[in-house]
Amino acid sequence: MLDIPKKPYGKLDLISADDHIIEPGDVWTKRAPAKLKDNAPRIVIGPDGMELWKVEERMTPNIGLSAMAGKTFEEYTAKAQSYKDMRPGCYDAKARVADMDLDGVKTQVCFPYVPSLGGEAFFEIKDAELRDWAISAYNDWLVEDFQATAPGRLVGLGILPLYNPEMAVGELHRIVKRGIKAVSIPCYLEGAKGCKSLVDPWYDPLWSACEEMDITINLHISSAKKGGSEFLKNPLPGMAEAYITAAPLGNFQILADIIWTGMLHRHPKLKVVSSEGGIGWVPYFLERADHTYNRHRFWTKSQLTVKPSDYFHRQCYVAFINDAAGVACRQMIGVDNILWESDYPHTDTTWPFSHKSVDESLPGVPEHERRKIVFENARRIYHLN
Amino acid sequence: MLDIPKKPYGKLDLISADDHIIEPGDVWTKRAPAKLKDNAPRIVIGPDGMELWKVEERMTPNIGLSAMAGKTFEEYTAKAQSYKDMRPGCYDAKARVADMDLDGVKTQVCFPYVPSLGGEAFFEIKDAELRDWAISAYNDWLVEDFQATAPGRLVGLGILPLYNPEMAVGELHRIVKRGIKAVSIPCYLEGAKGCKSLVDPWYDPLWSACEEMDITINLHISSAKKGGSEFLKNPLPGMAEAYITAAPLGNFQILADIIWTGMLHRHPKLKVVSSEGGIGWVPYFLERADHTYNRHRFWTKSQLTVKPSDYFHRQCYVAFINDAAGVACRQMIGVDNILWESDYPHTDTTWPFSHKSVDESLPGVPEHERRKIVFENARRIYHLN
Repeated sequence: MLDIPKKPYGKLDLISADDHIIEPGDVWTKRAPAKLKDNAPRIVIGPDGMELWKVEERMTPNIGLSAMAGKTFEEYTAKAQSYKDMRPGCYDAKARVADMDLDGVKTQVCFPYVPSLGGEAFFEIKDAELRDWAISAYNDWLVEDFQATAPGRLVGLGILPLYNPEMAVGELHRIVKRGIKAVSIPCYLEGAKGCKSLVDPWYDPLWSACEEMDITINLHISSAKKGGSEFLKNPLPGMAEAYITAAPLGNFQILADIIWTGMLHRHPKLKVVSSEGGIGWVPYFLERADHTYNRHRFWTKSQLTVKPSDYFHRQCYVAFINDAAGVACRQMIGVDNILWESDYPHTDTTWPFSHKSVDESLPGVPEHERRKIVFENARRIYHLN
Repeated sequence: MLDIPKKPYGKLDLISADDHIIEPGDVWTKRAPAKLKDNAPRIVIGPDGMELWKVEERMTPNIGLSAMAGKTFEEYTAKAQSYKDMRPGCYDAKARVADMDLDGVKTQVCFPYVPSLGGEAFFEIKDAELRDWAISAYNDWLVEDFQATAPGRLVGLGILPLYNPEMAVGELHRIVKRGIKAVSIPCYLEGAKGCKSLVDPWYDPLWSACEEMDITINLHISSAKKGGSEFLKNPLPGMAEAYITAAPLGNFQILADIIWTGMLHRHPKLKVVSSEGGIGWVPYFLERADHTYNRHRFWTKSQLTVKPSDYFHRQCYVAFINDAAGVACRQMIGVDNILWESDYPHTDTTWPFSHKSVDESLPGVPEHERRKIVFENARRIYHLN
């Protein structure tokens, strides 16, 4: 077991832009209307005594790598975990806040687990009524139970029925009124059922609605079909680690797509967050994109009117855990565009040593820059004033 | 037209680790044995007067982006080019050397065009005899015509029949004896006909042969099916530029695969070059890989015995054109592991201003480091002493 500090850190001067919920078993069953009661996503016990999430006919466990806070690296496992195997902060909002106190983290911005990172697992639900309801019910749980436990300290990212942009706009309006401050969108949305690429103009009305309400879209690495846990099935030894090593770079491609196809050009107030993507590759990304603009915009008849890096600096935010190369080149990225994250309770988490990790990550960074990176930028874009 | 300097630069103190050949029309026809004469790859004239390479039934043009040296960025085009549209240095070895003199480049290390970057287009040839011969004939042309034009100044990368590792070992021995100094291997070899992933142990005998002969394998971005010119077919505006921006990052994944699956562990003397991948992402890659090693090697039961960055520093080389972030963080990469390249005659080329580009790329870099990056490292690994 990890040697966990006994008393709270004290200073709550970190905001983490990317953390993860394991939903408690009653999120959907306790709010299901009578006619959906029997089909609401729920925990069932498998033949070997394992807890499994049942969503229609699909059964999936809470996989170990998603709930490793408090374990030593030697204890990390991909094997299914029961709730009793996890630290309660994984699934219990009150226990989570206690863990945040212990770690000196004021606020966490949290992604879902059962619906997948951007809701895409629920897009697969065959029963249309159940599908639409399961998404809304998750958002209701975020507002009524999760966020209500500690207002301003727990931020739940809403999910949207992206298989129907008009419905997605409606749900966005509904949940923002209820207190949702940002949403999660799958990166490779074209891999999610009934959806198109997020750079497809089909979604323009949704991005316009996000602009109007100043709602940030959060793109987490490994979301939708190009990522996921496919690597666990790969027979060649080492491919799991190769997958984990390269996973953040999916967000290099998605930022390239978003900028080049004009999504940010058409929506100049839209804010986009790259979650868990790291920052060490961002200076290269910006150089490479501007280089491409310099050399290729003539034959491609690019619709961009300013350099790709200008769109990035105006509208993109990049979250990192600890990343020496990115911090060294932070002026190329833009100190106003960087967010820190603790990734609780996943394997990359800095918990319960986030302050130590931040201090080691930001050697020689002046206090006013540090404060932007670990607190102010996130406070601004997630409306935590 | 580009304003091209009139007289040679003088100092020939650059070695470029990545450049490209457009083969002249007679490479295969002039050395075909009688029974293959009619089917040897050749130039034919299409219905609209366009020159096309005919390889069995497949017809492909010399695409514009592959032969842009001497054009302004405004003149760049993806459209097919005839030889008369190109600068002769693209296809004529003697003219190429004159262009190198003009640019101050001592040596170019060159990839093929018609066989594709790693020979993979030829793996598709249906007639087995023609297929094997077309590969060997390309290598013979490299030795007899291309390299012979200017020994030590033109290095042609050999290609191998990778659909048959035993034959590949045989061809490697044959061509190294003839004077080939390094080979090109497609990154996503599993996408090439009859091949497996390059990290598959199927290829271990080939890597052992490379170790024995100290022959470097060169992995060029966009080689085999995950790359290529698919982007030109994408209907969404901006996707061509998004593809070009992100293409170098394919080599992030391939280096992760090579290191994690133990290919370098099993072949501790094998040298691997990432060609046209840039270097700005490499510090992040090394951090991320070591971080993954620290946290995940227990549950994955990794076979690695040292950190991923140790394998990289011992065996990997990364080529860049101009890349401020990478140069700023060069100590994290390793000054002994960096190669400069001019990418002649592709769209990214520094020609005819390579010295200016190098000077701007390496601000404040001490002379002994500069010399390693632009000359000594390449001289050593390509046996140019």
